[in-house]
Amino acid sequence: MRTLPLTHRVYAWLSLLGVWGLFVTSAHADEGMWTMNNLPVDRIAQKYGFKPDQAWIDKVQLGSARLAQGCSASFVSPNGLVMTNHHCAHACIEQLSQKGQDLVANGFYAPSATAEKKCPALEVNQLVTITDVTETMRKALTGKTGAAFSDAKKAEQAKLTKACATSDDLRCEVVELYHGGRYNLYQYKRYQDVRLVFAPELAIAFFGGDPDNFNFPRYDLDVAFVRIYANDKPASTPNYFPFSAAGAQENELTFVSGNPGHTSREYSVAELLFERRVRLPRRLFGLSEMRGQLTEFARRGAEQKRVSKTHLFYVENSFKGLKGREMALLSPKLIPEKRAAEKVLRQKLASDKRPGFSKAYESIDKALEVYSNIYDSYELFEKGRAFEGDLFGIARTLLRAAEELPKPNETRLKEYTDAALPQLRQTVLSPAPIYDDLAILELTFGLTKLREHLGFDDPRVRAILGKKAPATLAAELVRGTKLKNLAVRKQLLEGGKAAVDAFKDPLLELARTIDSDARAVRKRYEEEVDGPLTQAHEAIATVRFETHGTSLYPDATFTLRLSYGAVRGWTENGKPVAPFTTMGGAFDRHTGEDPFALPQRWLTAKPRLALDTRMNFATTNDIIGGNSGSPVINKHAQIVGLVFDGNIHSLGGDYFFDEKVNRTVAVHSSAIVEALQKIYAAERIAQELRGGSAVGAAAP
Amino acid sequence: MRTLPLTHRVYAWLSLLGVWGLFVTSAHADEGMWTMNNLPVDRIAQKYGFKPDQAWIDKVQLGSARLAQGCSASFVSPNGLVMTNHHCAHACIEQLSQKGQDLVANGFYAPSATAEKKCPALEVNQLVTITDVTETMRKALTGKTGAAFSDAKKAEQAKLTKACATSDDLRCEVVELYHGGRYNLYQYKRYQDVRLVFAPELAIAFFGGDPDNFNFPRYDLDVAFVRIYANDKPASTPNYFPFSAAGAQENELTFVSGNPGHTSREYSVAELLFERRVRLPRRLFGLSEMRGQLTEFARRGAEQKRVSKTHLFYVENSFKGLKGREMALLSPKLIPEKRAAEKVLRQKLASDKRPGFSKAYESIDKALEVYSNIYDSYELFEKGRAFEGDLFGIARTLLRAAEELPKPNETRLKEYTDAALPQLRQTVLSPAPIYDDLAILELTFGLTKLREHLGFDDPRVRAILGKKAPATLAAELVRGTKLKNLAVRKQLLEGGKAAVDAFKDPLLELARTIDSDARAVRKRYEEEVDGPLTQAHEAIATVRFETHGTSLYPDATFTLRLSYGAVRGWTENGKPVAPFTTMGGAFDRHTGEDPFALPQRWLTAKPRLALDTRMNFATTNDIIGGNSGSPVINKHAQIVGLVFDGNIHSLGGDYFFDEKVNRTVAVHSSAIVEALQKIYAAERIAQELRGGSAVGAAAP
Repeated sequence: MRTLPLTHRVYAWLSLLGVWGLFVTSAHADEGMWTMNNLPVDRIAQKYGFKPDQAWIDKVQLGSARLAQGCSASFVSPNGLVMTNHHCAHACIEQLSQKGQDLVANGFYAPSATAEKKCPALEVNQLVTITDVTETMRKALTGKTGAAFSDAKKAEQAKLTKACATSDDLRCEVVELYHGGRYNLYQYKRYQDVRLVFAPELAIAFFGGDPDNFNFPRYDLDVAFVRIYANDKPASTPNYFPFSAAGAQENELTFVSGNPGHTSREYSVAELLFERRVRLPRRLFGLSEMRGQLTEFARRGAEQKRVSKTHLFYVENSFKGLKGREMALLSPKLIPEKRAAEKVLRQKLASDKRPGFSKAYESIDKALEVYSNIYDSYELFEKGRAFEGDLFGIARTLLRAAEELPKPNETRLKEYTDAALPQLRQTVLSPAPIYDDLAILELTFGLTKLREHLGFDDPRVRAILGKKAPATLAAELVRGTKLKNLAVRKQLLEGGKAAVDAFKDPLLELARTIDSDARAVRKRYEEEVDGPLTQAHEAIATVRFETHGTSLYPDATFTLRLSYGAVRGWTENGKPVAPFTTMGGAFDRHTGEDPFALPQRWLTAKPRLALDTRMNFATTNDIIGGNSGSPVINKHAQIVGLVFDGNIHSLGGDYFFDEKVNRTVAVHSSAIVEALQKIYAAERIAQELRGGSAVGAAAP
Repeated sequence: MRTLPLTHRVYAWLSLLGVWGLFVTSAHADEGMWTMNNLPVDRIAQKYGFKPDQAWIDKVQLGSARLAQGCSASFVSPNGLVMTNHHCAHACIEQLSQKGQDLVANGFYAPSATAEKKCPALEVNQLVTITDVTETMRKALTGKTGAAFSDAKKAEQAKLTKACATSDDLRCEVVELYHGGRYNLYQYKRYQDVRLVFAPELAIAFFGGDPDNFNFPRYDLDVAFVRIYANDKPASTPNYFPFSAAGAQENELTFVSGNPGHTSREYSVAELLFERRVRLPRRLFGLSEMRGQLTEFARRGAEQKRVSKTHLFYVENSFKGLKGREMALLSPKLIPEKRAAEKVLRQKLASDKRPGFSKAYESIDKALEVYSNIYDSYELFEKGRAFEGDLFGIARTLLRAAEELPKPNETRLKEYTDAALPQLRQTVLSPAPIYDDLAILELTFGLTKLREHLGFDDPRVRAILGKKAPATLAAELVRGTKLKNLAVRKQLLEGGKAAVDAFKDPLLELARTIDSDARAVRKRYEEEVDGPLTQAHEAIATVRFETHGTSLYPDATFTLRLSYGAVRGWTENGKPVAPFTTMGGAFDRHTGEDPFALPQRWLTAKPRLALDTRMNFATTNDIIGGNSGSPVINKHAQIVGLVFDGNIHSLGGDYFFDEKVNRTVAVHSSAIVEALQKIYAAERIAQELRGGSAVGAAAP
């Protein structure tokens, strides 16, 4: 995973298992993705001579942001200016493009506040409060198993989030930390009016493309600025990170404050083997085949290239990241080491008399056996892999919204509970364009996989395909559906069940055809896989907790975490890798051919640039996919960089952290300022970053 | 792998490791791919009441054939008529097609001998004699290691094969059986004048396409007939298999006589883990990506579909087959069981005083460590994966032929020794068409992988790509090379070093640029990987041999083997799978959409057909990739079927044989005759199969 280009879809996948763990850190490693209410301040002080106090911690929490679609970000001015990666804002940039006006290729800059353009489907969240609701959840769950456990959990979460999200401007989530070791209620301020302010050309944002992805040295200006608005005015954000004058220095203490999506550092060995044998291969083969299709699709012409670029990026990035995970799981040492570590825990649990404790590992095995049996059906029908592309998701959401919304909040499917509705509306009503050719390609792919994995003779496959080939059916559905029309979607969402039932549409019909199968397999998954896994891990976590107390951090959950580290290179094959690159290096690497072709604006500006300006750098911070767009700050809580990637050794980070070689890769703050000023003439923004007033923006 | 659509390229890959093993069979399983000079006749007699005698064995050996490009076949008339699979003759059928005359789609039938069309690059081999040369090889190798071992092996093999192949009509190979347990010299009659006689439409040859591939029940007429010619006349083949009148019956004893390509049943655990971790994933990701590219390429238009069909078939087939292997290696039980079995051998070897014996396993570990380090370079440069497509292979062969042929036979690279020259000539001078678009796609793919795996900064990558993107360079090379011209190739092959040195060609130049790197890594592979593995396995084999004598069969080596079994279904999820399908079943499965669309000729002929004619069937014979096209014969050495696939459970067959579920899948002989007569009006051939004189063919 590039450091977090988690689309909603990818994130949904990553978080699917819903299990997590704890990890005992060694005294000296810069390891850990720490929650804001349990920072290892003494450990940091001991190693780096700086001890964060509560004021510092609060400031950092409120200066940090999350993109709901799967990235991190930060506030960088008091006037709602948000910094993230270009690849995190990529979908917005693409959606604002059109034939003949390709903002992805050409970049975008709003010279005045009025020129800032609304992103069709971007949501920014700011974590406001964390409340411990462990006792409440425990009370609701104790003594329950199977369907009762799963229903009670859903109901209690729906109750808590509804009570918390008192308006659409608030977003609330019950976060399972330490997997039932702690349940915390996270309350966010939600911003759905997000406008694009600045994005460079993709050619420099992603200079080196897939070949350089997850590598270092790097030369990327992977930055984008958006601004959050409230009531049509730039929102006020008094808690923000000002830019440091000097930017990151070698060996300097750095913090990364962001939302790592998912780690599996304390998965049981059985779960790791399941990942290795079932989930990752299936996913990787799908991604690499889709990569091939999109690569060739893009060769048809400039327009095809334009409309498929983002998708290809996600596919290649996910492929490279997940491949790294599979390779880590296949490496000779990982599983034996995990097995040895697990042995100690197994012994403790085996003799524990509390209910469920002694059979925790056995129960994981059983859950995974069920999961193996239902895996294909669950992925294809409920996760929608048989119906790739955005259109089917829209159809299903409309269908299910009509069925779920009339139910009491506590019994609805999670994504239809009251607290989830603002995001649901944003997704269904996104004006992001849908391109028929690409949609047909994707849906054909999904339907082909449906037939491939279940076989031609499966009655569900026959019911869906009838006598049609996947490509034939996909073309009919995409061409025939009226759901590409935003007004129709709006009408169906607002019209409820009566409207949806009365509406004739082939895609809606497909969603209806498979919905009982999809719901049935989801129910089995929740009751026989997710529930038992949660309960087993709760037992394991409790024992671990009792042994190690709070000297532990939980596995990543796409919620705010702080990691600490230092600017530092590493040694590769006996040779030192320096921690910095310079802007001049980008010109040395320029070949003129994609993805090593600098934008014309860069070539023109070269004589004006300070070529020794630091461009990218590496740090020892412990991050993972979801951290993309995270600010790198110094102890004064000033921006010294912007996380956009990890090095190749970071790919095993899902399972372990190796401070010797695992590196965060970031854009240096100096390069951002230099480029804004000397290449893009974006003085309005440069000044806003320097702490001057936000020229133009404050006076819309 | 479908039961053996091994292209030369795929086969080269499969046989790359060059290690093998022995396998101790249980008394009752129909397991084993037995060499013709060590058949378990008593075991067969005991189980099936029929004991093959020497006359029977000789007849079967001489009635069997091999397609040098990677399949099996059989002689089915005294006049050189050869039966194999459509998918084995696919390349020929495609090469004989042209725009507007698509023999793959429409099928082909030569109504008279003069209408039989010469295949551009098909070679048929008939195994004539087997000579044990174990002592000779041992004498040459004893006491040698590293480069000395590798050189001596090459030299001795070149000497033996040269002495054996006294004319271009003979092909000789030293086969390492039981990996040094035995060296046998195989002498074949070689037929390079091979003409296409009959092929049905791809739609019925591969009915059900990729979704049904490796599945059963099946409804495929995967058959093609070719004829071998000598001196422009049908060759005389007095040893042939007549068609049985009834065809295969349930529970009937069946033999499969063919050339299984490769098994790894006695790989060491370390080698299996290397497969699982390095070779298979790398290959699978490449195949699935290429699958995506070709799928999308074919959507551009009918012509693109036509020219890429064969390639896509190979890719999908290899992908499915190799995926089955990877999944078997990832299954929870396989490695632990292999480890347990190996433990016994390890103990025996550890205390063995013969040189090298006690360190055999250690030496395997060391060899694999080297292999890991050179794997990318070896695959990309020497195996040519960085330069996918046929053109580079031609360029390199011309370059190396110019360098190798002047050397003494014994010191040449193996594929340039005298005995190998006829096939080399056939490959380089094949008139098979090359399509620029497809060649550019392939070469772009290879060059992209080169950069992906070695990185942009690797000096070799920089030397090859310079400032060009892979697609740019690929297009220049394909468009610019003169090697598409057969006359040029001929001139360079005949002109030798002077001609090649003087010739300016961009592809030849590329081959020259990388040749020293390629040769260097090959040398390391041979001396530090293949040699030590061979020697370690020789020690292991010796110990195993001493324990079990000749009650063992060697791992497959793409040489003639006999397997025995019976026509039999199996039980799938508690339900019986019947061993036969009928021609009527194909009509039930017909949807009208590819790959479930029957050809028009079938639809038209339906009223004339006996719909209860058996179409495909399953047997317990132990086969693997390379067996495609093998005859299924009864105890009277009559054709009762034609192997074309294995069921899904056969995919683990590389590592173990499970008689309960592993099944060979074959075309029933009755369906072949029924279709020839009633659908294709191919009475000339039907009569020849029935044992009538070969109408027309005998009188050219």
